[in-house]
Amino acid sequence: MATTMPNAAAQPTRIVLDAMGGDFAPHNEILGAKDAMQHFRENGINAEVILIGKEPEIRAALAKHGAEHLNFTVLHADEVVTMEDEPAVAFRKKRNSSLYLGLQHHKEGKAEAFVSAGNTGAVMSHSTLILGRIDGVSRPTIGTFLPTTEAYPTLLVDAGANVDCKPKHLYEFGVMGSIYVRRILGVENPRVGLLNVGEEEIKGNEAALEAHTLLKESSLNFAGNIEGRDILMGAVHVVVCDGFVGNIVLKFAESMLTFLKAKFTAFADKSFGQKLMMGAAKPALKGALTGMNYEEYGGVPLLGVNGVSIIGHGKSTPLALKNMILRAEEVVRKEVNKSIETALNS
Amino acid sequence: MATTMPNAAAQPTRIVLDAMGGDFAPHNEILGAKDAMQHFRENGINAEVILIGKEPEIRAALAKHGAEHLNFTVLHADEVVTMEDEPAVAFRKKRNSSLYLGLQHHKEGKAEAFVSAGNTGAVMSHSTLILGRIDGVSRPTIGTFLPTTEAYPTLLVDAGANVDCKPKHLYEFGVMGSIYVRRILGVENPRVGLLNVGEEEIKGNEAALEAHTLLKESSLNFAGNIEGRDILMGAVHVVVCDGFVGNIVLKFAESMLTFLKAKFTAFADKSFGQKLMMGAAKPALKGALTGMNYEEYGGVPLLGVNGVSIIGHGKSTPLALKNMILRAEEVVRKEVNKSIETALNS
Repeated sequence: MATTMPNAAAQPTRIVLDAMGGDFAPHNEILGAKDAMQHFRENGINAEVILIGKEPEIRAALAKHGAEHLNFTVLHADEVVTMEDEPAVAFRKKRNSSLYLGLQHHKEGKAEAFVSAGNTGAVMSHSTLILGRIDGVSRPTIGTFLPTTEAYPTLLVDAGANVDCKPKHLYEFGVMGSIYVRRILGVENPRVGLLNVGEEEIKGNEAALEAHTLLKESSLNFAGNIEGRDILMGAVHVVVCDGFVGNIVLKFAESMLTFLKAKFTAFADKSFGQKLMMGAAKPALKGALTGMNYEEYGGVPLLGVNGVSIIGHGKSTPLALKNMILRAEEVVRKEVNKSIETALNS
Repeated sequence: MATTMPNAAAQPTRIVLDAMGGDFAPHNEILGAKDAMQHFRENGINAEVILIGKEPEIRAALAKHGAEHLNFTVLHADEVVTMEDEPAVAFRKKRNSSLYLGLQHHKEGKAEAFVSAGNTGAVMSHSTLILGRIDGVSRPTIGTFLPTTEAYPTLLVDAGANVDCKPKHLYEFGVMGSIYVRRILGVENPRVGLLNVGEEEIKGNEAALEAHTLLKESSLNFAGNIEGRDILMGAVHVVVCDGFVGNIVLKFAESMLTFLKAKFTAFADKSFGQKLMMGAAKPALKGALTGMNYEEYGGVPLLGVNGVSIIGHGKSTPLALKNMILRAEEVVRKEVNKSIETALNS
């Protein structure tokens, strides 16, 4: 295992932030960038945020949120890829978007990472097309952390980037996920599980059966098949599945809190007594359910592209955006990509 | 739509119950059968339960639970298919099992339905092999109800019977699920959704794309694609997916309560104050989360077999078993199979 190199050179880690990405752009972006810069300064991390997007809007937001003194570099980009844009069309027609130009800036070596809370599909495809793939990677993938009953979250990979997967792709997701968890969460030898319909080796659809063999024969710490019920129990650190299953599980999981809230509200609305009971329950519920919040995990990395591209939820709060920026710096500093390249070419 | 025929003929609906099926057999089975019989009598339903399994054990349990006066017909079967048995092996080698002989009894026309809380895989494959398929059905399927924020549950179909599915199979699941929900829950024109990674028609893996076209062109009330987050929101009455995805979603959903309990316990264990808070929360939690219990739904039907076979959880309580028996009678009375045959052959 390569040792982690502290990024203490004169050259700071430059992170391009798509200031026009999220639903609340550029405000949450500016607030997140401000907090990230403060964090970097307080912790002696040599990194800086470059803002890209419509310069007048960015300047106005910087003034509004009292962030002018931080002297952000602002790059102007005339166009914006919206949530409604078809990724492929946007790629062809909006060559002056903050997304396109921001990634181009990174590609040209003028920045070490790119962060966006914009149109997920567009960020994925733009990143892959502009940055290219790491040698040995067939398909870049998105991983996402889910909470577990254990002290650690579990990384679900692929979480939606690739809906039709070959066994080889699943194997590569396992390799990339394992490296990400080792480097970012510091888990020494992450347990990797293959999401399947039964624990026995002979279970599953065709792709899962073959992927099982590949994972078993690899140098990964492969824990075998895991089932849907094992995910939240933290049975493994990395859950491997195709993006069709991963996207459905992720969105189902995200709806759990909404579902519970609706059940609680319906209960409280039945009678005054029940309203009081639910009122008494609130502090405990709130306390118990913290940590189920996606904001902490700071966006999801697009693993396998030849660069660092962090993708966030459209509804990202300033905290989420701050954490995405910190995550980007960490992925650069901990040389995640170098590890992936080594693992898939040895 | 065919009208529902009251089952008022002299011949009662005879339901064979696998008395050796579940983890607590024959006790929960006998208790469930007793309650079901009481229900039939009290509601003037002309139906009876036939118990099959090791006769001495059944007789002892009938005596123990004070059910001798109900004069159940008891059929002796020397062997038991256990939870550990490989379904195909059990089918070949245990021809005197309660599962095999019970289904045979149904097949021979000596009973109208079969109910078991035994080895799910074995109940499925035995049922398909012994009863055969309804004309027009390519693959029998298992549906399972999940709770929603609406007043109705949603039927997830396939919930694990078929891990590799062709578009045509998915279409048939939609047809069978729709009929089941219409007949059993009384929903006039059930909304059917295709579980996918996006709402747009062009989203999804290959099977989903083609299934979308088939469902769209059918006479079903097709609501288009739905996403993982729409399931618990009750966006549709029937969620169509392959058994690989369905099984993973179902088991993930089942683990939600365990996950929440673990979070609540961890919260309460942190301090005495938090313990008190959680104590105050308990009544509300309990009240709000009822209805997430599988027992109410009374097992899942194996749709598409040429007969009625209801499969229950190994841990089925007496209440769950009672509801499985009532469900079996209902499926017979409401002629679900006839509707399926008509729909798939017209």
